[in-house]
Amino acid sequence: MYLELAVQTKEREQFINITQQLNDLLTESKANNGCCTVFVSHTTAALTVNEDADPAVMDDLLMFLQQMVPLKNGYRHREGNSDAHIKASLLGCSLHLIIKTGHLDLGTWQGVFLAEFDGPRRRTVKVWLD
Amino acid sequence: MYLELAVQTKEREQFINITQQLNDLLTESKANNGCCTVFVSHTTAALTVNEDADPAVMDDLLMFLQQMVPLKNGYRHREGNSDAHIKASLLGCSLHLIIKTGHLDLGTWQGVFLAEFDGPRRRTVKVWLD
Amino acid sequence: MYLELAVQTKEREQFINITQQLNDLLTESKANNGCCTVFVSHTTAALTVNEDADPAVMDDLLMFLQQMVPLKNGYRHREGNSDAHIKASLLGCSLHLIIKTGHLDLGTWQGVFLAEFDGPRRRTVKVWLD
Repeated sequence: MYLELAVQTKEREQFINITQQLNDLLTESKANNGCCTVFVSHTTAALTVNEDADPAVMDDLLMFLQQMVPLKNGYRHREGNSDAHIKASLLGCSLHLIIKTGHLDLGTWQGVFLAEFDGPRRRTVKVWLD
Repeated sequence: MYLELAVQTKEREQFINITQQLNDLLTESKANNGCCTVFVSHTTAALTVNEDADPAVMDDLLMFLQQMVPLKNGYRHREGNSDAHIKASLLGCSLHLIIKTGHLDLGTWQGVFLAEFDGPRRRTVKVWLD
Repeated sequence: MYLELAVQTKEREQFINITQQLNDLLTESKANNGCCTVFVSHTTAALTVNEDADPAVMDDLLMFLQQMVPLKNGYRHREGNSDAHIKASLLGCSLHLIIKTGHLDLGTWQGVFLAEFDGPRRRTVKVWLD
């Protein structure tokens, strides 16, 4: 079953926790046990699973990515967002997650995050429920 | 259903757009809606989804990876291609993609790329169609 | 079918080859052809596929990650393991692997590795067999 989530981002770069939205979507769709594919259909955004508890973890990840991938670096792409494309490929655009009794079967501290690297924009997260 | 794609690379390092080849494979296999796993069965190659429109984006990604992962760095592996193994793990070897009416359900600007980091070689891309 | 693997790590940072354990699990579960999702339910560990033959490859990858992601870097997260969270997101927590006649259909040199970045700990690897 094909499902979709719309996420409005507010900064050029930020992580947005979409765990609750994904779980709500699974509940509405009467998912039970199985798997789902989560896919972000953009080239300057990504998906990652990391700590849901202390927001400083995602702040640190964002700061590190900004240090590692320079904004200006003699890039050939003329739109000025090559750093965003690079970060997107480093984190990746697809996740495959296990579902248990209708909810994402994540670890205690895990959440699913949309990574925005060239916002603010309206982003689409596609979900395929096996 | 198990499917396979052969890709001949021509440089030591390059990105090769395999979107069309994957879509042709799905068409031949009469895929409709669902998912597929795309997997590169090599340790010095990878898969990534990024911009299909301006080739400069993939040039920038390749240049960045070359800057970030030094070719020589006191590595212990004696074959001289540790940089390629490292880049392969950073991008990853498996994608899970949604299929809509027989085609990969990618975003407007997205394409699927085989990343060659130690070519030229003949590479195998394995596809499992759910 | 839901399956689970327990892995006891012994160092703060190490790669543990779990290919044999995964194949044993598939054999016990009478898996035949298809796919499985492998998921590590922790935020300071990851999964990656890379060379199974010369252990120096994984040593080089670990050394590179230690160089790239500083242990101390003005991080905001107070537990002192932000480097581990960052490395986890760079490698990723989920793999989708093809199964052929009951075994992981990996390339000749490929193995599946659990990446421990904040051990020693007891880690859980979740497997969903389609």
